[in-house]
Amino acid sequence: MRATVYHGPRDVRVEEVPDATIREPTDALVRVTHACICGSDLWPYRGELEIYGRPGRTGHEFMGIVEAVGSEVATLLPGQRVIAPFAYSDGTCDYCHGGLQTSCRSGGYWGGADDGGQGEAVRAPLADGTLVALPEEVDLSDPRLAAALATLTDVMGTGHHAVLAAGVAPGATVAVVGDGAVGLCAVLAARRAGAERIIALGHHPDRLAIARTFGATDLVTDRGADAVARVREMTDGGAPHVLECVGTAGSFATAIGAARAGGTVGHVGVPAEPVDLLDVHVRNVRLIGGVAPVRAYIPELLADILAGRLDPSPVLDLTIPLEEVPAGYAAMDERRSIKALVVMGAS
Amino acid sequence: MRATVYHGPRDVRVEEVPDATIREPTDALVRVTHACICGSDLWPYRGELEIYGRPGRTGHEFMGIVEAVGSEVATLLPGQRVIAPFAYSDGTCDYCHGGLQTSCRSGGYWGGADDGGQGEAVRAPLADGTLVALPEEVDLSDPRLAAALATLTDVMGTGHHAVLAAGVAPGATVAVVGDGAVGLCAVLAARRAGAERIIALGHHPDRLAIARTFGATDLVTDRGADAVARVREMTDGGAPHVLECVGTAGSFATAIGAARAGGTVGHVGVPAEPVDLLDVHVRNVRLIGGVAPVRAYIPELLADILAGRLDPSPVLDLTIPLEEVPAGYAAMDERRSIKALVVMGAS
Repeated sequence: MRATVYHGPRDVRVEEVPDATIREPTDALVRVTHACICGSDLWPYRGELEIYGRPGRTGHEFMGIVEAVGSEVATLLPGQRVIAPFAYSDGTCDYCHGGLQTSCRSGGYWGGADDGGQGEAVRAPLADGTLVALPEEVDLSDPRLAAALATLTDVMGTGHHAVLAAGVAPGATVAVVGDGAVGLCAVLAARRAGAERIIALGHHPDRLAIARTFGATDLVTDRGADAVARVREMTDGGAPHVLECVGTAGSFATAIGAARAGGTVGHVGVPAEPVDLLDVHVRNVRLIGGVAPVRAYIPELLADILAGRLDPSPVLDLTIPLEEVPAGYAAMDERRSIKALVVMGAS
Repeated sequence: MRATVYHGPRDVRVEEVPDATIREPTDALVRVTHACICGSDLWPYRGELEIYGRPGRTGHEFMGIVEAVGSEVATLLPGQRVIAPFAYSDGTCDYCHGGLQTSCRSGGYWGGADDGGQGEAVRAPLADGTLVALPEEVDLSDPRLAAALATLTDVMGTGHHAVLAAGVAPGATVAVVGDGAVGLCAVLAARRAGAERIIALGHHPDRLAIARTFGATDLVTDRGADAVARVREMTDGGAPHVLECVGTAGSFATAIGAARAGGTVGHVGVPAEPVDLLDVHVRNVRLIGGVAPVRAYIPELLADILAGRLDPSPVLDLTIPLEEVPAGYAAMDERRSIKALVVMGAS
């Protein structure tokens, strides 16, 4: 089958790989219909952080159709459309029961030595716990709906995790650091949670325009200390809830600085660098967050999307076929695209 | 009057300084009877972090007797014994009302260009909001009681803050990183909060012996990754509550690593170095804490001490007169003493 393989910085290739197959009785074989390129896929692409190994299969965001199931799979049938969260999990351990499927005692991540999402098919371990079946009537030939649902594999659930971590409640004032796909989804999730004032911090006019349509009431385009000063001025000392959606030392500093003393930074940006916590200490800013257990959030967010109450589809602003995945990486790397949707069989 | 002045690393001197006086109508003049040397006083002493300036008056932990009050002081009278928290605060702003007096809009810290606690007298700004009067019958000629109460200026309240930040509840399993005065007080505070299992991590047998008497049920003397592995093994994956009472990058790493996925690190160690948050991210470990608003905690902890239910006095294992403060710094620096109590007028 065809799949995307990472060979080194700026070197991802779509090539022939061994067919995905069922190996364990708890596996499902999923024929991928839609995949996404994640901002974190750009780290190895940019040579910043190896996450897939070399050579390593890439992609952890995908939807597809169940082609076959192992003998112990109880809840899925061939032909069903499914959404895969970016981590697999058994659904039965104490962490899964606690809603922290990313810490599942049997779980793991896609890609590397295993199948990645950016390929024609994937062996999905722990299928019962991992995959979420879509209602039969869902029509993924609607590109907007397909894009909206594809965000449930990662970015929409991740934005929602930031909102939950920061304790955003109806009427809240929230600052969102980052205008990438996750930051935009965090704006949308904050509005969904009833936030009254949503201050979006970013530097890209096109993305901030989406933030506006997603519910941002204020935009801040300053950087660093200026951005902190601006948010503090707007909020009489800082926002009670800040959503960190980038992950650099600088963006953490901005998020922490923009928070009110005693406030909470809900962080979902992967902290690629050590973070100075002195301001956290002096002002008792709470840091809550991490990798999002999106498996826990798919059902409720899916229901909202299908009911027309939630539409994160604008963050996927580029649609490409599988063979153009390398071009999709380049487009995201050069910020010509916020996030790319890979549609299998498209041309 | 005589007071301690910081001149540079390893150079603190007790010398003549201008008498403390009332300057603002909200000031009280406090004749110091007891002061402590804080672990954080050792940072400038060791040349690690300037906090008092050069020359700068030192000490932020003291008790004393009100000698005079400004015209607007409403709740204090000359002759009253008072405990000063390590930060002053007005008691009336939104942060004070929220129990975060360390972020008071009018507040500040002792020492530097102002009077420090390690001297004969202190001008105490915002006296009504800051100072806590002791009941008249309290007899500070009892050295054990005096030492116990002196811990309310900082370390006992700081340990309690870690416990609150980490959400320790009755029956909880708690790991405490650090066997200094704050770590020991955190053990005591965890027991006070009803923790059932308290794992104390440290390297000093004498201090761990105190941790035992304070309520530690388990002692871990391994370091770094070994300590993490040991706590994880003891707790099936990590403690749900960890109290970070040191502040180095290494102690934060130990605290984070010892926490269960989804658990909480209540941190009160001043983070002197940037902290790697990758493990925080991957396992959704919550970081909650900071500088303790000890002013908020003095009343309830005081009540427990006076009722004989709480006795942090063993952390003050060295008593010295004012003129020997430099020797007290040296004793703490060389770990011959956990924490020194300065008794004015003693010889």
